[in-house]
Amino acid sequence: MANEETGQRNATAAIIGAGDFIGAAIAKRFAAEGYTVFIGRRQAEKLEPLRQEIEAAGGRVVARSLDARDEEQMVAFLAEAEAHAPLEVCVFNIGANVNFPLVETTARVFRKVWEMACFAGFLAGREAARHMLARGKGSIFFTGATAGLRGGTGYAAFASAKFGLRAVAQSAARELGPQGIHVAHLVIDAGVDTAWVRERIRERAGDAAVDSIQPGQLMRPEAVAETYWALHQQPIDAWTFEQEIRPFGEKW
Amino acid sequence: MANEETGQRNATAAIIGAGDFIGAAIAKRFAAEGYTVFIGRRQAEKLEPLRQEIEAAGGRVVARSLDARDEEQMVAFLAEAEAHAPLEVCVFNIGANVNFPLVETTARVFRKVWEMACFAGFLAGREAARHMLARGKGSIFFTGATAGLRGGTGYAAFASAKFGLRAVAQSAARELGPQGIHVAHLVIDAGVDTAWVRERIRERAGDAAVDSIQPGQLMRPEAVAETYWALHQQPIDAWTFEQEIRPFGEKW
Amino acid sequence: MANEETGQRNATAAIIGAGDFIGAAIAKRFAAEGYTVFIGRRQAEKLEPLRQEIEAAGGRVVARSLDARDEEQMVAFLAEAEAHAPLEVCVFNIGANVNFPLVETTARVFRKVWEMACFAGFLAGREAARHMLARGKGSIFFTGATAGLRGGTGYAAFASAKFGLRAVAQSAARELGPQGIHVAHLVIDAGVDTAWVRERIRERAGDAAVDSIQPGQLMRPEAVAETYWALHQQPIDAWTFEQEIRPFGEKW
Amino acid sequence: MANEETGQRNATAAIIGAGDFIGAAIAKRFAAEGYTVFIGRRQAEKLEPLRQEIEAAGGRVVARSLDARDEEQMVAFLAEAEAHAPLEVCVFNIGANVNFPLVETTARVFRKVWEMACFAGFLAGREAARHMLARGKGSIFFTGATAGLRGGTGYAAFASAKFGLRAVAQSAARELGPQGIHVAHLVIDAGVDTAWVRERIRERAGDAAVDSIQPGQLMRPEAVAETYWALHQQPIDAWTFEQEIRPFGEKW
Repeated sequence: MANEETGQRNATAAIIGAGDFIGAAIAKRFAAEGYTVFIGRRQAEKLEPLRQEIEAAGGRVVARSLDARDEEQMVAFLAEAEAHAPLEVCVFNIGANVNFPLVETTARVFRKVWEMACFAGFLAGREAARHMLARGKGSIFFTGATAGLRGGTGYAAFASAKFGLRAVAQSAARELGPQGIHVAHLVIDAGVDTAWVRERIRERAGDAAVDSIQPGQLMRPEAVAETYWALHQQPIDAWTFEQEIRPFGEKW
Repeated sequence: MANEETGQRNATAAIIGAGDFIGAAIAKRFAAEGYTVFIGRRQAEKLEPLRQEIEAAGGRVVARSLDARDEEQMVAFLAEAEAHAPLEVCVFNIGANVNFPLVETTARVFRKVWEMACFAGFLAGREAARHMLARGKGSIFFTGATAGLRGGTGYAAFASAKFGLRAVAQSAARELGPQGIHVAHLVIDAGVDTAWVRERIRERAGDAAVDSIQPGQLMRPEAVAETYWALHQQPIDAWTFEQEIRPFGEKW
Repeated sequence: MANEETGQRNATAAIIGAGDFIGAAIAKRFAAEGYTVFIGRRQAEKLEPLRQEIEAAGGRVVARSLDARDEEQMVAFLAEAEAHAPLEVCVFNIGANVNFPLVETTARVFRKVWEMACFAGFLAGREAARHMLARGKGSIFFTGATAGLRGGTGYAAFASAKFGLRAVAQSAARELGPQGIHVAHLVIDAGVDTAWVRERIRERAGDAAVDSIQPGQLMRPEAVAETYWALHQQPIDAWTFEQEIRPFGEKW
Repeated sequence: MANEETGQRNATAAIIGAGDFIGAAIAKRFAAEGYTVFIGRRQAEKLEPLRQEIEAAGGRVVARSLDARDEEQMVAFLAEAEAHAPLEVCVFNIGANVNFPLVETTARVFRKVWEMACFAGFLAGREAARHMLARGKGSIFFTGATAGLRGGTGYAAFASAKFGLRAVAQSAARELGPQGIHVAHLVIDAGVDTAWVRERIRERAGDAAVDSIQPGQLMRPEAVAETYWALHQQPIDAWTFEQEIRPFGEKW
């Protein structure tokens, strides 16, 4: 419950993989609701603009360097959040989208994609659960993708990792739900509307393609973040495990 | 957009199958947001308490007798809503849960369950689409059930109708989404917490079973209704097609 | 078990919807294995070439006029097969592929497609089960399509019927399996290689398109029929419920 | 094509994880069809009885020590098979069924289960593809489990690995199918009938439970193996990607 005067809560929300647009938007959304947000990514200095933006808006934020594949670092990151205030929310938001023909997929790539997109998610979910189970309360959310539901040409490595992450989420949801922890898997089924994405569209299809992007063809990061917030707001007797979101014009 | 002073909107929300607890809760939720709600069920007189409750709370409501399997009645019901004010929301909420061994399922039962739970849903979706497409805007929501995803012993008739309804919803979503209409299928995966359900539990398992119902084992109708509202609030670039909800303690 | 000398069995196989290329190939396949095949379609005279072909090959066949949506006719058709010799196999093979925009789908079309592709399948499954349960043995197979797994633009009617048929099959499989009846749902995910299909390809895409059809882009009816036979051959401890088949070049 | 006189083929079939009952039955099935079977497992000496059994039956077999998680060993194993005769079949059959509460699942266990059940499968599929693509022909089959479709309490590690393996299979099927390679994922949804399984049932539920095992409650390894053979026999225009098998009495 947020403090009536300050709007702040004695609670933390950890965002692992806060480096991309979705992660940043989620961090801002929960900070705006009074959570102290713990944001982690490998190169902490790249979190500086986000940290400043949250603080400028009156939010509380702690930015940390975090290699999410490293068990010790993950344990320490979430333990620090919990030590600061009860960990109420943990969002795992690391992707690793690559595409290689199967016979050109090296063992190194296959393993690395899995470590980033699946193994790190397992570590995050397990450590968050450890803190939350004591209170029988909390939300653990995993950012998924269409590749977590469907393999495809060139996606042996990426789909395998994303399928694996979905299995962690589903197993955790069935195991932790009856103990009061809300686990969810969000399927983001479209591109996000950012300068970077618009530039890629320009490169591939020209200026006209960018100019003709209609409202709702791409997703605004803040629209995506809203879904995480809405899931966290669900009452205990009407929880969703899996939620896909896509813009109205998306083919699926 | 609701009027700032009155909180009312120049828009209608139609709830087909407003007779059960979920339907009633959805009607109250949208009425509380300023929609004029059109509620229909076969015996209109049974809608009287709901009508009075909504009006007593300051809402606007029109109750109509509606056999949803009758094309003419469905056309007229939604045309009247549209004539009143633009139809922005249409919720199809008729179930027909029966269980018979396959060889004891009569053709009459199989057909009737389909007419109520699937054919009527097609009529509702089609007519709502006709009104909404002209404005390129609106929400059409279908209440589904676990039986819409999974058949089972004794469920040939019910599952068949619910699968069929889900196909209507999915086809409509793919067809109407790019035209601005948000179609969703909600999977209600648990019992709803009502006096009636508690009485059934008492009958089968005794007083102690009712006394030991924990918060979150059953779903409150208003928690379910909140999900419909949240879906209707989704921005056009982050739509969900299918959303399951269940209480935290539910096995799935 | 087939008679060693004659290769014939004291058993019948009923093929409902024997009019298309798949149905005909299935009828020939089971006739070749010594079953007396009962073939039904609305206009019995159109079955005459198939009947003659099976007899010329030394098979035994009974062709009957059958409106599969008519309960009495279905009851009589399968009762006659059972009276002839124990009904061991029942294949429901009626489709009704139509495509209309949702708002142009009439109630009449929606109902008719359902009656042909779903309701008739329920009747066939129920009646076959009645005969087979007494012996605790038999195979009931339903021909499905991709539209039974996935709705799409213009497919509200067809997908709804095919989803509904799949639910009948899945419910029947869960109910009848433990009683010794093997129920399966086959998903035919491609066009079948027939003169008719080649002619349609020619119309749409010209002679060159037909000439460039590669082996394996379309399915031969006899390759499809082989799958039905293989399923019927599965031992009781390794049954498959759902089997999709497609040619190697098919996108999915 | 098998030699008419000897029944032997100039082709190899590799079975990775030939140590369990299913693996052994598959090896015997393909050996009986004239393939030289290359069987691998970590401790090659444990393959000795199987090797002798196949040879005694007139089959040809090469047994090798193989740590399937080791890229070099996998490359060498399949290269040796290919050098012997064209590799026509590759079956990946390693499981790693463990069950731990999420918070008690160590990083070591999570990683090891993945290496055995998913990463090794990727290596096998990739190397087999390399050999087969040159000829545009071959079958690559993966043994899956229900845990590959559905997570559950205690299954974060095992389900994650099996989901990941299924994604490899599905991606490979979509990528290699149009190039003539048949990739399939078999879902074995029940216990296998072996002395070991019967002993476990005896321990848990007593002699009576074993005596009351009905035909078809457990799967015979040879019934499972038959499914692999049937898939390999499918003509190129009617391929199945995923096939579940279970005994008739299994709940699902």
